[in-house]
Amino acid sequence: MQPEMNIPSSTISSSKVEGTNVYGLNGDKLGSIDDLVIDKASGQVRYAALEFGGFLGMGTDLYPLPWGKLQYDNGKDGYVVDLTKEQLEGAPKYAKDDEPEYTDDYGRGVYDYYGSPWVR
Amino acid sequence: MQPEMNIPSSTISSSKVEGTNVYGLNGDKLGSIDDLVIDKASGQVRYAALEFGGFLGMGTDLYPLPWGKLQYDNGKDGYVVDLTKEQLEGAPKYAKDDEPEYTDDYGRGVYDYYGSPWVR
Repeated sequence: MQPEMNIPSSTISSSKVEGTNVYGLNGDKLGSIDDLVIDKASGQVRYAALEFGGFLGMGTDLYPLPWGKLQYDNGKDGYVVDLTKEQLEGAPKYAKDDEPEYTDDYGRGVYDYYGSPWVR
Repeated sequence: MQPEMNIPSSTISSSKVEGTNVYGLNGDKLGSIDDLVIDKASGQVRYAALEFGGFLGMGTDLYPLPWGKLQYDNGKDGYVVDLTKEQLEGAPKYAKDDEPEYTDDYGRGVYDYYGSPWVR
């Protein structure tokens, strides 16, 4: 089927995503989005990097989240994800100054952890 | 063919793209990237918004550029695009506080202007 030509697709600016708070379904604040990691060749967002942790002044880590996990909630003025702190504690993460290489294995590991369909 | 599993795909953070200078092939500075506009559903970058213009203190406009036009040049510490100021002057643009709706027609118009293959 040919898509309609003038239905706007909903877009968002990267600068509006960065710094946005992220909440669990139970309302707990989990952290905020640090930035988006984008494939240079295709322009596809590989993941949103969630800043989470850093208790008692210890360093924060970044948690790669599949883009599709982020659902914006106008009432909260932030993203709501169907995750708990406990799930995040076992999730793939990296130190802020040590961004991993995005291989197929790495990407699959992240998407599998969250049960998201993997997009290369 | 099955792609190799551990070839890293080259990625970049949105926060590193924002603010990066953009130069023409002749070395002229054309402006800088303001931000990236991303499709909410797919996570695909629709365009990079180039801040260009603002002569003599007049307001700057944003020029949507297809992602594929941006080629990073380490020597220049910025992007080089095969565009001249004259080409940009006739290009699609919008005021910074008046982001357009991203319809298929709008997207095609932008990509066609630059001769880039259009990705929905």
